[in-house]
Amino acid sequence: MDIKNELKLFQEKVNPELKIFFDKNIEDSKKNNFITTEALKQVKKITLSGGKRLRPALMYWSYKGVGGQNEKEIIKTSISIELIHIFLLIHDDIIDNDSKRHGVETIHAKYNKIGKIITKNKRDSVHFGNSMGIVVGDIIGALGNQVLFQSKFDAKLVIKALSQLQSIVARVAVGEAQDVFIEHKRSASEEEVLDMYKNKTAKYTVEGPLHLGAILGGASDELLNKISKFAVPVGVAFQIQDDILGIFGDEEKIGKPIGSDIREGKQTILVVRALKNANKKQKETLIKLLGKKDISKDEVEEFRVVIRETGALDYANGLAKKLIEEGKGALNDVGFNEGAQKTFLALADFMAKREI
Amino acid sequence: MDIKNELKLFQEKVNPELKIFFDKNIEDSKKNNFITTEALKQVKKITLSGGKRLRPALMYWSYKGVGGQNEKEIIKTSISIELIHIFLLIHDDIIDNDSKRHGVETIHAKYNKIGKIITKNKRDSVHFGNSMGIVVGDIIGALGNQVLFQSKFDAKLVIKALSQLQSIVARVAVGEAQDVFIEHKRSASEEEVLDMYKNKTAKYTVEGPLHLGAILGGASDELLNKISKFAVPVGVAFQIQDDILGIFGDEEKIGKPIGSDIREGKQTILVVRALKNANKKQKETLIKLLGKKDISKDEVEEFRVVIRETGALDYANGLAKKLIEEGKGALNDVGFNEGAQKTFLALADFMAKREI
Repeated sequence: MDIKNELKLFQEKVNPELKIFFDKNIEDSKKNNFITTEALKQVKKITLSGGKRLRPALMYWSYKGVGGQNEKEIIKTSISIELIHIFLLIHDDIIDNDSKRHGVETIHAKYNKIGKIITKNKRDSVHFGNSMGIVVGDIIGALGNQVLFQSKFDAKLVIKALSQLQSIVARVAVGEAQDVFIEHKRSASEEEVLDMYKNKTAKYTVEGPLHLGAILGGASDELLNKISKFAVPVGVAFQIQDDILGIFGDEEKIGKPIGSDIREGKQTILVVRALKNANKKQKETLIKLLGKKDISKDEVEEFRVVIRETGALDYANGLAKKLIEEGKGALNDVGFNEGAQKTFLALADFMAKREI
Repeated sequence: MDIKNELKLFQEKVNPELKIFFDKNIEDSKKNNFITTEALKQVKKITLSGGKRLRPALMYWSYKGVGGQNEKEIIKTSISIELIHIFLLIHDDIIDNDSKRHGVETIHAKYNKIGKIITKNKRDSVHFGNSMGIVVGDIIGALGNQVLFQSKFDAKLVIKALSQLQSIVARVAVGEAQDVFIEHKRSASEEEVLDMYKNKTAKYTVEGPLHLGAILGGASDELLNKISKFAVPVGVAFQIQDDILGIFGDEEKIGKPIGSDIREGKQTILVVRALKNANKKQKETLIKLLGKKDISKDEVEEFRVVIRETGALDYANGLAKKLIEEGKGALNDVGFNEGAQKTFLALADFMAKREI
């Protein structure tokens, strides 16, 4: 099964729904005031300029996998998790000081620019941009919730799904808090990093969407637990692969400049493990280059060599592989129907390669 | 009817529920990690150190007013709107750079301090504090939604209420965006200011909670529309009175230093009207003092004189009175039961005085 193609097919179904959603809300906002209209237009632009729609796809496949039949409604409803994702990204972009997403100006960056025109000084305009980013994120979060309320699924299932959605948000925010903490104290234990991956990626990106779909498809709590046993290890592996790509991937593959994880000084599992195993000289190299804003290509290569020589790369690859196997083993117990079973097996393998 | 006493009686019922909520979530968070535990403890401290619980009280009175019978459940559920309020305040405090709320350190201020210990420089620690404020706000928002999901009211009513709650959040965020815009461009038309009041105060503080309570009590859409005709004008009047107190109130009454609205350079209806009516000299005074960080008591008095002499105070008082009368007139059409009718009439009168 070609999972990339499956994902592409799903994108073709879900992207028009996202477009409809934004157009409707942009139209509605015109009745109120231009501020929201402009903000929503920018969010639409960011959203439709990229994004893999992995979370809505997982929600959709899971719904169908437990026997859900309402194809049209699940696609419409699946944009809720994408909108929640966008709300969190808008806040995340403020936290990470990122000025572009999918090549489009982030909300706080756009309003920072507008702020320069309407406010008197630079500090004010940054604060203005961030303030607008906070509230625009909050608006998208509320609208994302609303998509789920307004779906035509049974009210009891919707409430159960909503409760799940809020747990997901609370959980990823905990992961985000852990991330902020780790980034600012500039050190972490392997346990802290893995726990953060569990909260920030595994539960949020994989388990949450799978649960949402399964709940709307009528799954029992027991089945949800079984899904977790597949979702969490696969999700952590997904993040580990992301870390590997963040250091070893080329620009084309990851869509970010080479070595950007090093430049940002990210405390990934690779870095933590390398620091643990490093000799004095290797440690000096790691510390010297980690967080270096003007890191050169040669220095990125120097960093990679240390990650390899300390065994950190092998360790991370091994851990990811082990987790993928664990997840695949658990998948048999879930009892998804045949099509979904195949999709999720292919997905697990694909996540281990992590090119999506 | 003594509305202040009614509110106090309600606070005695709802505050223990808030305490139970925080204690439970603090206990749960200990299973995950200390970061959230500490953050939740701080949010609990802020919440229980003050706040009038006006929104949950309105929700409760409205529920009872349309004939709702489940006293225990509505009190438990009413904390959802208070938690949403706290989530928005946490974000608002970042936007307004406020370091204290009810005399307790705000979330971003607390983490700014922690940031100074764990990060290397001042700019980083401010960003760290703001980042934590954003995510902790998001967590409380998600938990606030969850309170409503987990309530024992009929699933269909809960979904309708939830949808309403999201509209409220989206709407107040629009109002907040308008506020941020107006504050940074440092000028506004009366229409813009009143529209912002409608979004930020009237719909959020009065209409929203009344709708939530009425929905859970089984009210029809027609009834909700009638409630709006009471809620929106009374809510705008409430904000106008707040503005008047912000300039003319004494420290004891408003719990903020004298003239803090002037110091912050707030574009209130008073300021906008005064600027419109002012002669050259009066205009100079207004512009000189508006936003002056080290404004003296004499200068506050000077500012007040101009607000009075330009007729802005009379205008604002007159507008508030007119709106209160409009709201009271609409109240008869709602058909709340006798107890609630009395409460809301007293509330409208009280809001015109605006000492709560």
